[in-house]
This record gives sequence, C-alpha cells and structure tokens, in this order.
Amino acid sequence: MRDTPYLAVDEQLLEANLTAMAEHARQLGVALRPHAKTHKSVELARRQLAHGAVGLTVATVSEAEVFADAGLDDLFIAYPIWAEGPRASRLQALASRVRLRVGVDSIEGARMLARAATSGEHPVPLAVAVEVDSGHHRTGVAPDQAGIIAAAAAEYGLTVEGVFTFPGHSYAPEARASAAHDEALALEVARESLLGLGLACPVVSGGSTPSADAAEGRATGGVLTELRPGVYPFFDAQQWELGTVGPGRIALTAVATVVSSRGARVVVDLGNKVLGADRAAYATGFGRLPESPEARIVALSEHHATIEFATAEAAPALGSRVRIAPNHVCAAVNLADELVVEQNAREVAVWAVDARGANT
Amino acid sequence: MRDTPYLAVDEQLLEANLTAMAEHARQLGVALRPHAKTHKSVELARRQLAHGAVGLTVATVSEAEVFADAGLDDLFIAYPIWAEGPRASRLQALASRVRLRVGVDSIEGARMLARAATSGEHPVPLAVAVEVDSGHHRTGVAPDQAGIIAAAAAEYGLTVEGVFTFPGHSYAPEARASAAHDEALALEVARESLLGLGLACPVVSGGSTPSADAAEGRATGGVLTELRPGVYPFFDAQQWELGTVGPGRIALTAVATVVSSRGARVVVDLGNKVLGADRAAYATGFGRLPESPEARIVALSEHHATIEFATAEAAPALGSRVRIAPNHVCAAVNLADELVVEQNAREVAVWAVDARGANT
Repeated sequence: MRDTPYLAVDEQLLEANLTAMAEHARQLGVALRPHAKTHKSVELARRQLAHGAVGLTVATVSEAEVFADAGLDDLFIAYPIWAEGPRASRLQALASRVRLRVGVDSIEGARMLARAATSGEHPVPLAVAVEVDSGHHRTGVAPDQAGIIAAAAAEYGLTVEGVFTFPGHSYAPEARASAAHDEALALEVARESLLGLGLACPVVSGGSTPSADAAEGRATGGVLTELRPGVYPFFDAQQWELGTVGPGRIALTAVATVVSSRGARVVVDLGNKVLGADRAAYATGFGRLPESPEARIVALSEHHATIEFATAEAAPALGSRVRIAPNHVCAAVNLADELVVEQNAREVAVWAVDARGANT
Repeated sequence: MRDTPYLAVDEQLLEANLTAMAEHARQLGVALRPHAKTHKSVELARRQLAHGAVGLTVATVSEAEVFADAGLDDLFIAYPIWAEGPRASRLQALASRVRLRVGVDSIEGARMLARAATSGEHPVPLAVAVEVDSGHHRTGVAPDQAGIIAAAAAEYGLTVEGVFTFPGHSYAPEARASAAHDEALALEVARESLLGLGLACPVVSGGSTPSADAAEGRATGGVLTELRPGVYPFFDAQQWELGTVGPGRIALTAVATVVSSRGARVVVDLGNKVLGADRAAYATGFGRLPESPEARIVALSEHHATIEFATAEAAPALGSRVRIAPNHVCAAVNLADELVVEQNAREVAVWAVDARGANT
C-alpha cells in the first residue's frame, strides 16, 4: 500500500482519451500537437506521438529543454518569448538541435528572437508563429495586426510559419462552441493579413480541450491546420463541470485518506499543495469525486480538503481512501514528482513528471 | 542576469521579520515553534532556531523526515496523522531519532498512533497534542471534548503533552483580533477539560501569522505556552491586504519579465505555476506589486499574469522586470526548487526548498 496523497492515472482511460483526440484530429484533417504542459511527462509525450501527434507544444524554454533532452525533436513554444540574457543563448542552443517554433506577438519581441538566433558563434534558423487574440485577452495581437508582426519578423530573418491563438475563453459555461467560432474567425483574419502582405501562412494553429469538439479543420471546411489541446489525456473536474466530458473519462485522480470526521463532513489528507488552488467562478468546489458526484469539496487548505457528503451515512469512515479529480489537472501534475499508473486500480508503473517546475 | 521567473528573498527584510517575531514571542513568554511548511528550507529553519525558536512545526511526516535528516531534532507534526501502512513505520522511525509530537483529533486516530509507536521491533514513546477547533472548522474536536481524546490517548500509552489549535479564521478582513480571542477561549476550555480528567497540560499551542499580534501568552496573562506562525519570515500579499504588515515588510517576491504590452495592461512571464492560484474573497487580485501598490493583477493563468497599471505611462515597457508578492507565499515556495537570496537586489546565495512537495 502506497502512502497517500498521490496522483493516480488510470491507464485504460488515458489510452482511450489519447485515441479519441487523435481520431478527432484525423477527422478534422489537422496536425495534432498536444500541449505537454499538462502532463510534463516524457512517457506520456511518447504515447501521444505514437498515437499520431506531429510534435509537442510547450510553454517555456525549460519545458522544451526537458523534452529535447529526451529526444522529442519537434517543439512549439506557444508563448511570446522575450529572448534576453541566458534565455537567448538557451533558445539558440535549442534551435540548433530540434525543430523549433516560437510564438511572437510584438515587433520588439521578434527583434529579440532574431538577435538570439543569429548571435553567438553558430547562427541558427528560427521559426515563429504570430500569436493573435481570439477573445481570451491575454497575449496576442489583434488578428488584423498579425501581418505587420509577421512582416517584421521575416524582415529580421525569422522564418514565419503562420499564426496561432489560444481560445481560453472556452473555459466558461456554454462557451465551448462560441469560443471555437471566435478562434476560427480570428485565425482566418490573421491568415489573410499575412497573405495580404505576400507572406505564406502554412500553419494555422489553435485549440483548447473544451473547444476542440467544435473546431473545424481543413478536412471539414475550417481554417485550422493544427490543434494544441493540453488537458485531454486526463481531463479534470473543470472539464466535467464545463460539460466537455463526463466523470467516467477522467483518467487522473488524487488519492487521499480520511483523517478527520464529523457527520456528513470529512477531512482528507491533501490540499492545494496536491490539487492546486484553481477554482473558477463556475466550479462547484475545489475538485470533484468522480465516484461520489454528489459530494462537494467545500474548503481546501494546504493539507486539508473538507468534503461534504449528502448524509453522514454516505460519508466515508476514518482511514478510508477517496479519489479526487483536481479542478485543473495541469496545476496538480506540476505539484507532483511522479504519476502512479494503474490498471484496474492496481499499480503497474510510475512515470516521472520530468518537466515539473520548468518555468523559465 | 538570472532568467525569470524566480523567487527572490530580501535577506535584510527576512532577518528583520525573524527578529521581530522572536522578540514578540519572548515578550509573550511563549515558546516559538515556527511552521516550516511556509519555507520548507533547512537554512531558514536553522535561522529560526538561531533566533530562539524551540523547534519546528511541520504538516506531514515527509516534511518531518526532511528536517530530521538535516539534524533538526524537535518537531511537531501539527496534523491528525492517520498512522497506517508505510506511514506508520515511517512515523515510528522518526520518533526513534528526534523529539516528536504529533496531532490527534479522534480516539481512532490515537489508537492507530499508539499501534504505530509500539509495533515493530523497537517500540518508541510517542507524544501527542489534541487538536481543537477554535472557529476555523477544519480538523480538531470541540474544545470541551479534548479531555476525552487525551484520556484515550493516554490509555493507549501515548504521552499527552497538551492541546493545540489553528485559528485559520484569522484570514479574513478585521478578523485577526477576534480569531486570537476565539483561540484563547477554545484553548482554555480544552486545557481545563484535560485538567478536569486529571491529565496534565503543559503545552497550549496556537498561533497563525495574522493573529499573532493579538495573542497573549503566559507572561501577558494569556493561556498560550507556544506559538506556531508560518508566514512571518516572508509575509505576502494576503498579509498586506489583511493589514498584518505593510508592503515594506514583504521579504519574498517573484521576479518576472514583461513579455506582452497593450496600453496600461502588460503580461509578465509567470503565472499560477509560480505564484500559486490562491485568491481569497478579500484579495484585490492574484498577487500584488509592493513597488506599485496601485497596480492590479487582473488575470492569472499558468504562465501569464496580466497586470493593469493606473495609466499606460505607469506600465513597464516590454523586457522590464517587475517583482510580485504572491497572495499566499506557502504555495509559491512549494512550487519552486530554490530561493534566490539577495542583499540590496544583488544575489548572494541560493537556498534549496528542501521539503518541496513533501506531502505524504
């Protein structure tokens, strides 16, 4: 028996999730480039490639370094990297050994990337994609400005591959289809703004896990050539509550022990240092119990989750184990050193979270 | 130049904070037993002891193991440990090599602890303190029930040292003094319930960072013999917004680079994978900038913080660095592998976060 808390991955559910998304991408006629920030695991990345993914998406140079070290050689850092200091040299080193694409959303950023790529003893070609804002209002330029950034990047000597966006506003109730619609519109405008300036735009990249269902690719009349969902290998309580999937498809849970009990309320031995503290406005609590959908996690501190069951009879006894789906699985995985892989609740493997904490 | 993001500790502010709390405990006539879950750092624990702390508080057996391995030999696991499986053996091993006290809040829990202590080849004495609920409503029994748990624990052969509580309801606006009052009342009732059953109660342990100011110890007419604040070496945006301290006493900040800019709004290269996602109802945002008190962190995702400044002129340019106080410093530290120690913003040391991820 392993001491709680730990993160358990149901291998059968995981494989079913990997298969379903790969098949979906094939039907859309798009390349699948999963976001590895969710799992940060070399083993899982290899499985995604085995299912047909063309490469990986990552968020940071250090995540890219971890996967490059493991031999994964087609990476997209979907982030407007500011290439200065040690990071500039690290980026150059990375571009010299893997096929690398980097995000950019400003002329100044493009200039810094070009300087990083061409400085030093061994200048390397560096590919970029321009990030556009499709409604999430985070990074990214207005879609019709993409061409200006792309032209500057090309002028600086970068290889412009196309445009990308993250439709993060899909993370809201009833927003999955409309976010996919916004994404398609923004990417179409961005693509045209490149074409209008005489630039090619072979890559049109989008996708979040909630909006993936409603996305359209080249084979279905849509603009997308590439899809970058992250959460889909595991899913989580957010995806359940958003309606992306039911609880039966959640492949990762945190296993906890009941340490304190008072009627219908119990406290288990994990908190936000295992689950993460994400709690969107639409969430019903700080995580969900797939095996007890009526239970609510009403409070969460660092090492305590307070779970309210419907009745005292429904509450598990002291010493019992419960399984909790984190609200946001990316946060939970990044807090763990390893994932315990199970078949029929029996431990069969342990996978390292290789890129845990790789934030630079 | 170090790549962002990273956590920076201002050594002078840190030392001032350590000094102030040690002096406060001396004035109250209480033992200071800081909660090491905040810093998880052996170096910082040693400094706390150098300032007069009697030992450490920790939250988990694995945190205790890390500090015990480093020679810190007086530890209180302030948590109702369920001692079963490997954890029972680990607890026994720990009790055989350091002075160990463990929390308990049920008769069943006491029975499991006693079994862990006496099983195996080398039975060890194990000390406990009974946890009582002083208003935070998490773990802990009602104060007048403490004697019953204590009597059972003594019956099972455990050494009952006293009672403890965590007045976590001090984390709310205007609640610091009233939480300290609730704490004192609960601990007095709990202590009397032990004395009433003929049990000694030498340890009466409480304290949170927000309520510490209003606490009273043996030297000031209060019931406390021991104080267990955690956050005070660093403080954080929560403590600032609760009024515990002003921004000038916050000793830990996350250093970030501006990667995207749009008028008064900028996006920097860190998110909840560095700051943590804690956001209490009273918080004005997802962290605060001590050097720009008017700025607000209006959105936070995994690698992006969106900061809104008062005007476009006040917003830092692309490539600038900003320093952000996390809302909850314990969460931020637990996401980092190391703390970069600075004097006058110049790096002088790097301390490992030795017990990062020590959740079991």
